[in-house]
Amino acid sequence: MAKQDRGIRTRRVILEAAAGVFEECGYEAAKITDILTRAEVTKGALYFHFESKEALALAVLAAQVSEGLPVIPRKSKLQEVVDIGMVFAHRLTYDPVVRGSVRLALDDTGPRLDRSGPYRNWSELNVDTLRQAKNNGELLPHVDPLESGLIIVGAYAGINMMARSTGEQAELRHRAAALYRHIMPSIALPGVLATLDMSPGRGEQVEAEMARTDEREDVGAAV
Amino acid sequence: MAKQDRGIRTRRVILEAAAGVFEECGYEAAKITDILTRAEVTKGALYFHFESKEALALAVLAAQVSEGLPVIPRKSKLQEVVDIGMVFAHRLTYDPVVRGSVRLALDDTGPRLDRSGPYRNWSELNVDTLRQAKNNGELLPHVDPLESGLIIVGAYAGINMMARSTGEQAELRHRAAALYRHIMPSIALPGVLATLDMSPGRGEQVEAEMARTDEREDVGAAV
Repeated sequence: MAKQDRGIRTRRVILEAAAGVFEECGYEAAKITDILTRAEVTKGALYFHFESKEALALAVLAAQVSEGLPVIPRKSKLQEVVDIGMVFAHRLTYDPVVRGSVRLALDDTGPRLDRSGPYRNWSELNVDTLRQAKNNGELLPHVDPLESGLIIVGAYAGINMMARSTGEQAELRHRAAALYRHIMPSIALPGVLATLDMSPGRGEQVEAEMARTDEREDVGAAV
Repeated sequence: MAKQDRGIRTRRVILEAAAGVFEECGYEAAKITDILTRAEVTKGALYFHFESKEALALAVLAAQVSEGLPVIPRKSKLQEVVDIGMVFAHRLTYDPVVRGSVRLALDDTGPRLDRSGPYRNWSELNVDTLRQAKNNGELLPHVDPLESGLIIVGAYAGINMMARSTGEQAELRHRAAALYRHIMPSIALPGVLATLDMSPGRGEQVEAEMARTDEREDVGAAV
């Protein structure tokens, strides 16, 4: 393994360990020593990649969106909007970094950590994809992509938070699917609406498709 | 003032003071002594009404829904669903108890305080009102009042939380109005949809109507 690859791998191991500790303890109670133990790395290695607990938390928060991306480009940009949320709901069932980032984002323990990053990133992503949908002629004429994008992001965060507070986070894909079924009829042209896949299994299906695409690219690169 | 009235008034003063301290400091950091100072009551008076900080917080949380109620009964039960959220958005701009209860409900600092109360109460209220709308024949045939009620409550909590995190809580009435405009077309019959008032000023208007109704009742009782 090249030195650079090893660095990337170590950074990832630390990020996953930090996310796990943040998920279990929350930001305030999380201890660097617990992250070191879990990651099985030295203090020097950790501080080489992240200068503080805050830097670790911000990296975990930033990964919430970058890890949700990219989804596979579709002819229907509204399908991409749905896919963004459904893939996220699926990843939340198994990806430690996504899980830790959600705990950090939904914690509201004071102004010490800037938690606005995920809202900003999710909003940009959704608004931008909705603008593409508008240019594609997929939206009802009155729809404002900025307003609709912010509503989707806020509403999605809320159903996620409610599922957490009632211990039903594993059911998020059902709630997310229901959310899209409640919102898309207000923004999509009927002909587009009829083609959207908003089923609870959509996220898992798109992830499998992405994995196959990655494999093909790896094979292609080797050849 | 009768002794009983004085007791109710004192309880209310303490509740408002506690809500204010919870809003500023959060649950963990809130101190009983700060609540006493703000309420200008004795320790004995406070403990007569509330046995602990937890009891105070639970009372503030419970008030979030009871204070939002009752909205004025309407022929259209879907209008009542909208009014519940719009009145809440309006109260959040001035009512200290509602403001404190929102901070408590959206804080996620650990399992020490049971914050599921407002979700449960809001869900019951919305689901129940949607069931009445269904019996009224106001809903599209496929709509499940339970599913739609939970989506509305979760989505509303999320836009509230997002508005908090970006410092735009005063704008909640605009976001709430936009949320209902995004969801109602998926659940209301077109003829009902056309009659719904989902304007940002709706909450203030309903509150003014409620105040006039209260006045008339007071006059009626005096006569």
